[in-house]
Amino acid sequence: MSKYEMMTKTELKSEFEKTYKEFEALKGKNLKLDMSRGKPGSDQLDLSEGLLTVLSKNDECYSGKNDVRNYGMLDGIPECKKLFAEVLGVSEKEVFVGGSASLTLMYDVISKAYTHGLATSVKPWCRLDKVKFLCPAPGYDRHFRIAESFGAELITIPMTDEGPDMDMVENEVRDPAVKGIWCVPKYSNPEGVIYSDRVISRMASLKPAAPDFTIMWDNAYCVHEFDGDFVPFKEILTECRNAGNPDMVYEFASTSKITFPGAGVAVIASSERNLAYMKKLLGVQMISYDKVNQLRHARFLKDREGVLNHMKKHAAIMKPKFKVVLSYLDREIKDLDIASWKKPEGGYFVSLDTQDGCAKRTLALAQEAGVTMTEAGATYPYGIDPRDRNIRIAPSYPPVDELKLAMEIFCVCLKLAAMEKALGK
Amino acid sequence: MSKYEMMTKTELKSEFEKTYKEFEALKGKNLKLDMSRGKPGSDQLDLSEGLLTVLSKNDECYSGKNDVRNYGMLDGIPECKKLFAEVLGVSEKEVFVGGSASLTLMYDVISKAYTHGLATSVKPWCRLDKVKFLCPAPGYDRHFRIAESFGAELITIPMTDEGPDMDMVENEVRDPAVKGIWCVPKYSNPEGVIYSDRVISRMASLKPAAPDFTIMWDNAYCVHEFDGDFVPFKEILTECRNAGNPDMVYEFASTSKITFPGAGVAVIASSERNLAYMKKLLGVQMISYDKVNQLRHARFLKDREGVLNHMKKHAAIMKPKFKVVLSYLDREIKDLDIASWKKPEGGYFVSLDTQDGCAKRTLALAQEAGVTMTEAGATYPYGIDPRDRNIRIAPSYPPVDELKLAMEIFCVCLKLAAMEKALGK
Repeated sequence: MSKYEMMTKTELKSEFEKTYKEFEALKGKNLKLDMSRGKPGSDQLDLSEGLLTVLSKNDECYSGKNDVRNYGMLDGIPECKKLFAEVLGVSEKEVFVGGSASLTLMYDVISKAYTHGLATSVKPWCRLDKVKFLCPAPGYDRHFRIAESFGAELITIPMTDEGPDMDMVENEVRDPAVKGIWCVPKYSNPEGVIYSDRVISRMASLKPAAPDFTIMWDNAYCVHEFDGDFVPFKEILTECRNAGNPDMVYEFASTSKITFPGAGVAVIASSERNLAYMKKLLGVQMISYDKVNQLRHARFLKDREGVLNHMKKHAAIMKPKFKVVLSYLDREIKDLDIASWKKPEGGYFVSLDTQDGCAKRTLALAQEAGVTMTEAGATYPYGIDPRDRNIRIAPSYPPVDELKLAMEIFCVCLKLAAMEKALGK
Repeated sequence: MSKYEMMTKTELKSEFEKTYKEFEALKGKNLKLDMSRGKPGSDQLDLSEGLLTVLSKNDECYSGKNDVRNYGMLDGIPECKKLFAEVLGVSEKEVFVGGSASLTLMYDVISKAYTHGLATSVKPWCRLDKVKFLCPAPGYDRHFRIAESFGAELITIPMTDEGPDMDMVENEVRDPAVKGIWCVPKYSNPEGVIYSDRVISRMASLKPAAPDFTIMWDNAYCVHEFDGDFVPFKEILTECRNAGNPDMVYEFASTSKITFPGAGVAVIASSERNLAYMKKLLGVQMISYDKVNQLRHARFLKDREGVLNHMKKHAAIMKPKFKVVLSYLDREIKDLDIASWKKPEGGYFVSLDTQDGCAKRTLALAQEAGVTMTEAGATYPYGIDPRDRNIRIAPSYPPVDELKLAMEIFCVCLKLAAMEKALGK
C-alpha cells in the first residue's frame, strides 16, 4: 500500500492541495523541456568533432585501391567491417555495413520478408494469411511499429529481470504464424536489462515451427555502458550456430549513439548465407551506401579500443544525468511506494512503473507543466500499456540544470496522479 | 547495305583476316579497361574536395536552431530543400530530401506501392493479380530491375528521338494493370535524348485507367550538360498539375554525378499530398537521413548558380571523353554503315546500335580483348534486346588515354562482328 493510501482522507486532501500548489508554481514558469526520446545531448555530439575533418583531402578517400567516393562495394568497406566485427565479436564475413540508420536495415529485413521472403522462407510473408511477431515489453516503439505497419499481429512478451519471459517465447514459437521476435539484448530499451546468458542460450536454441522465424537482435547499446567498464556479453551468431540455428538471427548495431545519431554508420551481422541472400535483394535498391562516411568512421574510431575509449567520454556526460533522475526518484518518490524503477548502468533510459492506471495521467500533468516525455503506452505493442503504468524517462538530451527542473516537475506529477488515484478521482 | 555486305567473299575474307590480326595484337596487350557503368572519373570527384571540409567545426553543424548531427527533420533540412527546389524548378514544399541514393528512393516508392499502396491506390499492388510497368527502351537496367524484382510485367516502349513512343504509352495506360512508367527525361540513359515539350505534355496529360498510375521521373541528368549551356526543360510537376494529374508523378534527382556518386544527397519532388503520404510510410523505417551531409551539400553547392558553375567543371572533363568516342566512331565505323549512334550533349552515355544480331558478339570480343562494357541487352527489359543491337558506351570512368585504347579495341570488335555476320558465320 502506498503512503497516500495509508493517509486519512483529510490528510490526503491537504497533501494533494499542497502538492498541487507546487505544480501550479512550476507550471507558471512556462517551461519547455524535452525528455521524450533517446537523443544524445549536443555536448555528446561535440565529442565527434574530429569525425568532420578526418577525411579532408582527395587522396585520403581511398580504401586500399578503392575510391570510397565512387560507386561500388555494396556491403561496405573492409575497414568498417573489421571495426564492427571487433566490436560485436563476429567475423568480418558476417558483417554488412549500410547507411546511417540501423532502423532502416531492420525495416529492410522485414520488408523483404514480406515481399520476397527470407533466405529460410517457403513463401513471402505477404502471401500468408497471418503473421505474428513477439514483442518483449516494455520495449522499443519503433520496432513494434515496423511489424505493425506490415499488418503483423503483435504479441506481448513480458520482460523479466534477465530478458524476455522465455517460457512464453518457447511456447509461442510453436505457432508457425509466429515469424520473429524483437530484442534489445543489452541495456534493453527502456529497462536497461542485460539479457542473461541463460536467456540468450534459450533464445538461440529455440525450435520454432516457422523455418523463417527470425530473431531481430538490435544490439543498439552494445558498448553503451555509462557506469563502469564494458560488460562482456554472449555473442548471438555463435550461440545460434552452435544450437543448429545459424540463419535464425539478424543482429543490428550502429554508431548513432557513438558519433552522430542522424549521420552515423549502421550494420547487419548475420550468417554468410543470410548476408548473401540479403545482398542480392538490397542490390536492387542500392548501388552502394555512403562509403565516405564509413571511412570517416573507421579512421576516427580506429578499432574496438578506440570505440570503448570514446564511449568513456559519453559515459562521463551521461552518468551525472542518470544520477539526477535516480536521486530525484530516491528522494521524492521512494518512501511513498507509488512507483518502482530500474537502475541501469548503460543505455539511454530509466524505466519507471507507476501504480496501475497512473502513467497517462502523470504524463498529461507533466505535459501541462511543459515537460514532454515519451507518450504513455509507447513501450507496449499498439501503444497500449494494459496496466497503464510504464513510463520511459530519457535523460540524455536536456542539460543537467534543465533535467533537474524536469525531474522536479515529473516527481510532483507522479505524486499528484497517485493521490488522485487514492482519492478515487 | 553495309560496306562489308557489298564486298566479294574473297575481299571480305581478306579484310576479316587483316582485322583479326589487329584484334590479336590488341588482345596481346593484356589490357583491363572498364567502360561498363556511368561512373565519374576520379578527376571529377576531385572537384568536390571542398565538400569534405565545408563543415569542420561543431558549431557549424546547425540548420537554423536545429543540430543536423542529431535525430529529426525526416524530410530534410530547409537549405537542401531550397537548393533542389531551385535546381528542379519546383516549390520547397514539393521536395523531400533523403539519403545518398535516388535509386533507393525510387525503390521505396515502388516497394510501398506493393506493400501499402500509394496515396492514390485502391489497394496495395501485392493484392492485385497483375501489375505491368512501361519501360521505354533502350533504358536504364536498374529501373527495370526494381519493377521486375516485385514481379511486375515489363512492357517495352520504343524510344524515339523526342522520348518514349507516346502513341503506344497512351494506348497501354488504358489497361488498369499498367501502373507506371520509368522515364529519364533529360539526357536519357543511354541515348541522351531530351524529351520534347510535346512528349512531356502528352505524358502529363495521360488518362490512365489505374488511379495510381505513376510516372517515375528520374531526372538524374537535370544539370548534366557537358557540351554547351544549361538547357531549360519543362517542369513535370507543374505540367501534371495543370493537366489535372497532380499526384501522378514522382520526380527524382541527386548529386551523385554532381559531387560524390556514393555519398551525395538524393531527393523526391512530388505533390504535397504524395509527400505527406510517403513521409508517413518512410517515418516507419527512418528517423532522419544524414543531415550532416545534406548541410555539407547546401554549403558547398550554395544555390542553382553554384550547381551550374560546378557542372561546368565536370563538362570540361567529360567533353573530351565523349569527343574521343565520337571521333573514333566517325573515323573507323561511319563509312562502313555497320552501326548508328547518338551524339549526346549531356548525360553519361553514347548509345550505339549495331546491325541486328551483332551486339552480344561485339561485346564478347571486346571482353576477350580486355574491355568490359555494359552487358548486351542490359538496356532492355529482362536484359533481352530483341534485335541484339544496342550497346551502351560509358566513357566517363577511364582516363582519356585508356579510353582511346578501349575505343580502338571496340571499333575493331564492331568490325569483326559485322564481318562475321556478312560471312554468315
